[in-house]
Amino acid sequence: MQNDFLYEIYKPNGLTDVPGFKCAATSCDIRSQNNQRLDLALIYSDYPCNVAAVFTQSKIVAAPVTLSKESLQQKELVKAIVVNSGNANACNGDQGLRDAREMIEISKRELGLGEKDAVLVCSTGRIGRPLPMEKIDKGLVSICHQLKYTQQAGKETAMAILTSDTKEKMASIRFNYQGESIYLSGIAKGAGMIQPNMATMLAFIATNARIENSFFQDLLEKSVNKSFNAISVDGDASTNDSVIALSNGQSKATVSGKSEFLLEIFRAALDRLTAELAEKIVSDGECITKVVSITVEGAQKDKDAEKIARSIGNSLLVKTSWYGNDPNWGRILAAVGYAGVEIQESKIDLFYDSFRSLGKDQPTPVILNGTSLPKNQQAWSKLVEKPRFGILLKLNIGLGKFQLLANDLTEGYVNFNKSE
Amino acid sequence: MQNDFLYEIYKPNGLTDVPGFKCAATSCDIRSQNNQRLDLALIYSDYPCNVAAVFTQSKIVAAPVTLSKESLQQKELVKAIVVNSGNANACNGDQGLRDAREMIEISKRELGLGEKDAVLVCSTGRIGRPLPMEKIDKGLVSICHQLKYTQQAGKETAMAILTSDTKEKMASIRFNYQGESIYLSGIAKGAGMIQPNMATMLAFIATNARIENSFFQDLLEKSVNKSFNAISVDGDASTNDSVIALSNGQSKATVSGKSEFLLEIFRAALDRLTAELAEKIVSDGECITKVVSITVEGAQKDKDAEKIARSIGNSLLVKTSWYGNDPNWGRILAAVGYAGVEIQESKIDLFYDSFRSLGKDQPTPVILNGTSLPKNQQAWSKLVEKPRFGILLKLNIGLGKFQLLANDLTEGYVNFNKSE
Repeated sequence: MQNDFLYEIYKPNGLTDVPGFKCAATSCDIRSQNNQRLDLALIYSDYPCNVAAVFTQSKIVAAPVTLSKESLQQKELVKAIVVNSGNANACNGDQGLRDAREMIEISKRELGLGEKDAVLVCSTGRIGRPLPMEKIDKGLVSICHQLKYTQQAGKETAMAILTSDTKEKMASIRFNYQGESIYLSGIAKGAGMIQPNMATMLAFIATNARIENSFFQDLLEKSVNKSFNAISVDGDASTNDSVIALSNGQSKATVSGKSEFLLEIFRAALDRLTAELAEKIVSDGECITKVVSITVEGAQKDKDAEKIARSIGNSLLVKTSWYGNDPNWGRILAAVGYAGVEIQESKIDLFYDSFRSLGKDQPTPVILNGTSLPKNQQAWSKLVEKPRFGILLKLNIGLGKFQLLANDLTEGYVNFNKSE
Repeated sequence: MQNDFLYEIYKPNGLTDVPGFKCAATSCDIRSQNNQRLDLALIYSDYPCNVAAVFTQSKIVAAPVTLSKESLQQKELVKAIVVNSGNANACNGDQGLRDAREMIEISKRELGLGEKDAVLVCSTGRIGRPLPMEKIDKGLVSICHQLKYTQQAGKETAMAILTSDTKEKMASIRFNYQGESIYLSGIAKGAGMIQPNMATMLAFIATNARIENSFFQDLLEKSVNKSFNAISVDGDASTNDSVIALSNGQSKATVSGKSEFLLEIFRAALDRLTAELAEKIVSDGECITKVVSITVEGAQKDKDAEKIARSIGNSLLVKTSWYGNDPNWGRILAAVGYAGVEIQESKIDLFYDSFRSLGKDQPTPVILNGTSLPKNQQAWSKLVEKPRFGILLKLNIGLGKFQLLANDLTEGYVNFNKSE
């Protein structure tokens, strides 16, 4: 965070904020709802891009994820990404693979790409229904010829990838290094089914930085673990999650081991970008009223702290109590108890805190050394009423720590998801 | 189940169905709600009992659980169990232990018990509030002198242990062996917070069978794993779960290795009893509309099958789709995918089935060899509308299997739990 002054974080307009990237989006009525909702988009780079990517850890993987993984294994340079919403193209067997390949082939043909120029494909939406390929083919042909550098094209692409989201999610950062402007921009979607690992979320990141291949994948993976993998909406994970980052290498400065300063400043910018997108996702959880940062410190291992944070953040009883403005720390402790990791009850400190306070504000103790402080009841109640607050749990038996962003569970969520 | 004809399963009236057991219950207004709700009960055996017990696996354990575990480790014979609802006596530090001990001491004094006669104590209710000991002491003194063999006393005790349950949960079985009548009777409570392992549930089982100590604990543990540990209401677990079984040994026949027939018939009776109580718990889940049996077969290991069944049964998206009568198998497959165990998508068969059908009825295929059968959509929809139905998942890669009982998630659950 000490590098903040170096960055310019500006009102984002999607991936076209980065020089050399074009976008286009259209409506194919993939959902068969007879409306003009944008549901197909193309992201295009003037220059072949190095690519880094992180995919769902589910054992059941959608067809487009399978193809994108294949492309990455062959270390192809990427020229474009085609994305549809409204249909996940998952659990569709061989037909699913054929359809995903067709989307790639049409893009390549219409864009006039060569053998070595790869196109990646992503889908998100309902599982187990064949793609309406006639509609998609027609829409895809048209957007291949409508690519634009404009802010509007960038924003429409951010809109076209949404499913149950209520708003588009974009973030853009710029910084200067040795007279060069380096841009990073990202768009994301995701509202329900977030967790344990990037569930039903898509994120696309573009940069003009030149990045050594060996660093790019590592930087992205670490950044994803601190951001998209550290949020939880409903504990469900999906078949389609993908975070894909493209680098067109047009800036002269190269992110590599040769300049530790540039490496660290780029890492901080990427982390900032993914953290912003992740927070936008969790804040747009389906029918939520609260966003809560759960900070666990002093566990034996980081992994233990993570397990406890997720146990709290996924507990239905904890989530419903947040919704009801009930400072019910008993349910939090119960969730700590069944997380299945080493703790010592008599050493536990629990605080209600401001959102993501990171120690800036004075947290209100609920439990110190395993003993509750009922006199603070009023103060907790006030904090829990806020739309954003934090929980700070100190286990005091080690150095392991983790921070998770979670939200509450509402009647609206149940009503929203009871049918599709 | 082939032994069914041997048993007489009759309308239960609580633990007084077993000769030699008395009960009493009263209202102490532990919840400070100024009503006559029963909240304190005493279970008493005329003869010192062998005891078997299974407790919560939470790392945060209520004071009464700590004391009961101590008593069991010392292999004490048990004469009585005192139980309160409305307050869990958890996270109350040393005061909690002192209060739980006081409940034991008062019972011993008023019942005139000797040094070697153990009394166990159980509590259930809200965490982190001190017990109102003045009220409890007074009520306890009175019920120690009101113990009765009557059906009413047995039923009132089953009522006094309830929290958010809507009805008391009792089961009783009798069978004859060599001219002896052997009785088993059980009562239970639990509605929210059930899973992964007996969360916020209490069950008390009494029998007049004589059982060799080495068999008793083993029989109970195995029975609990197939029943109370194979249900899921909301994925939360508690600090207070206890299943305690008492055997007063008054029948002449001894359950031991000497008679395999008696051992097996007793095991089957115990399994039947715990299964019935467990089904009563899951059917009384907070504000539920559906009970669903999730049967997973053909996993590499039983543990894998269990993980997948829990992943499905705890998925908010699956639970809400049941509530909405939506045969959304895509969400089921997504939950299979993120369970984190070995599967082969192309070998998966998924069926909608009748509740706990165990192959008796013809299940309706949804997916065969990983490919969906949309023509069956109508048939699935009809099954999912029922208040009880089953899901049968065949992974076809091994012999591991598990059956879980789960229920749906409703707006009512959220509303009910948003504050206490």
